Amino acid sequence: MARIVECVPNFSEGRREEVIQALAETIRTTDGVRLLDVQADSSHNRCVLSFVGDLEAVRAAALAAAGRAVELIDMNRHRGEHPRLGAVDVIPLVPVAGLSMEECVAAAHALGREIWERLRVPVYFYAEAATRAERRRLPDIRKGEYEGLKGKLAEPAWAPDVGDPVAHPTAGVTVVGARRPLIAYNINLTTADVEVARRIARAVRESTGGLVNVQAMGVKAASGQAQVSMNLLDHTRTPVHRAFELVRVEAARHGADILESEIVGLIPLDAVADVARFYLRLRGFDRAQILEAKLME
Amino acid sequence: MARIVECVPNFSEGRREEVIQALAETIRTTDGVRLLDVQADSSHNRCVLSFVGDLEAVRAAALAAAGRAVELIDMNRHRGEHPRLGAVDVIPLVPVAGLSMEECVAAAHALGREIWERLRVPVYFYAEAATRAERRRLPDIRKGEYEGLKGKLAEPAWAPDVGDPVAHPTAGVTVVGARRPLIAYNINLTTADVEVARRIARAVRESTGGLVNVQAMGVKAASGQAQVSMNLLDHTRTPVHRAFELVRVEAARHGADILESEIVGLIPLDAVADVARFYLRLRGFDRAQILEAKLME
Repeated sequence: MARIVECVPNFSEGRREEVIQALAETIRTTDGVRLLDVQADSSHNRCVLSFVGDLEAVRAAALAAAGRAVELIDMNRHRGEHPRLGAVDVIPLVPVAGLSMEECVAAAHALGREIWERLRVPVYFYAEAATRAERRRLPDIRKGEYEGLKGKLAEPAWAPDVGDPVAHPTAGVTVVGARRPLIAYNINLTTADVEVARRIARAVRESTGGLVNVQAMGVKAASGQAQVSMNLLDHTRTPVHRAFELVRVEAARHGADILESEIVGLIPLDAVADVARFYLRLRGFDRAQILEAKLME
Repeated sequence: MARIVECVPNFSEGRREEVIQALAETIRTTDGVRLLDVQADSSHNRCVLSFVGDLEAVRAAALAAAGRAVELIDMNRHRGEHPRLGAVDVIPLVPVAGLSMEECVAAAHALGREIWERLRVPVYFYAEAATRAERRRLPDIRKGEYEGLKGKLAEPAWAPDVGDPVAHPTAGVTVVGARRPLIAYNINLTTADVEVARRIARAVRESTGGLVNVQAMGVKAASGQAQVSMNLLDHTRTPVHRAFELVRVEAARHGADILESEIVGLIPLDAVADVARFYLRLRGFDRAQILEAKLME
């Protein structure tokens, strides 16, 4: 079976199309990887590339794109709504098939060392690759942002995991890590009352007493419906159907129901198979029984 | 996107391991196809091979295996519980990805002509490849079995679609066709009363007033539960969840419920995705959003 990793680097450029295309081109021209998606957001002034391949090719492509970003992006001129620390803001590696989280963590550590050695950008490790508990979550690492790096790096508690405690003059620092596939999952309600969506979000998310591995907020969807917008951080432990059913139960309390739901971006095959396992009460269903999955083995 | 066909030939040999292995070997050694599964049943005295590949390679592999079966199997000595007409009893082609049913039908017709020209085995076409309505269903074509072929072939209504109206002296005739993927789907009830399973089967199957594209019978599962054993013949029109929900409703009438269900063998990815679409009320969910499916494109 192929050993496949997904890499989803976030760069601090969402406006200059030629820079975004140059970054994408470094991925397209690296042997052994496939660029799946490029998303740029001009208000965030940030772009997100998604690509896959075997571990070594993905590391090479990530390093090449990071090198290009350090050349082309000057953080001293960067403004945008999304919190960020550097030109190459964050590089997560995600195990997709045929390899363990431990192997992804080791690859993240090796990639971080290369980024320091070749590009002289200091690196923090996060998520599964974190070296300390307080560095697991991106929001904690990003506190102070690029503009606060000088003071932050001087604190012993925030010494970088790799490199000198001084930010790169134009590229700041980079955060590298390994994490499980994240599922972006939105549920639209039968009501337009956003307050109902906010209450449901508070009930279902980890931070306020709900499901572990679930982040949620209540927003207004483009269609006008109230929406519970979620990130499912570990579908292997907290599957999609559990979030769906809990939202349904909480919505009923407010006299609302689920109108429809939406997977934003990509979802792993196992997460889809788990939905079928749950609702069809399947016994002994193996993903190798899915014809297309068997073809990939 | 790759153009992939599945082929599931049934041969009249389920006991002599060396013959089954010889047939499997012809598939394994054909370039461009992959053998997925070999299942032999000694009471049926029959084996079923499953393999995939592009259309031309699959035709070549099917012809090679058919040639080997004609050499190694003598129908005059064959005894088994399962109805059959020949050594190469039936060869269905199933479109999996990137090609239409019409292309599979054309390939089935071409394969049938080759079987007659190279192996001198007359051929009936069935299912989507049938040339007449009364040849669509295998049970109709198999009536009379191998032993009745002489009389059957003499009837003008049962002249073969390709070849002379005289059975091959040791291999009989072969049935070739194209069909959609068939899903073998069993539902175990919370009762051990097989009569309840039989009543539910009558309620849900096409032939007695239920869902089109569904065959069903009530049996006793190995575990002791009453079981509704189904073939779903066209999941694109009659999806798995519809059969599940109808069995649930009919079971409730008898004070029973669904304990668990089971996919036997392979299921297409689209059928699994449809289950998620239904139960999660997904809007705009495309199979290319499944990471592994995107990797296959």
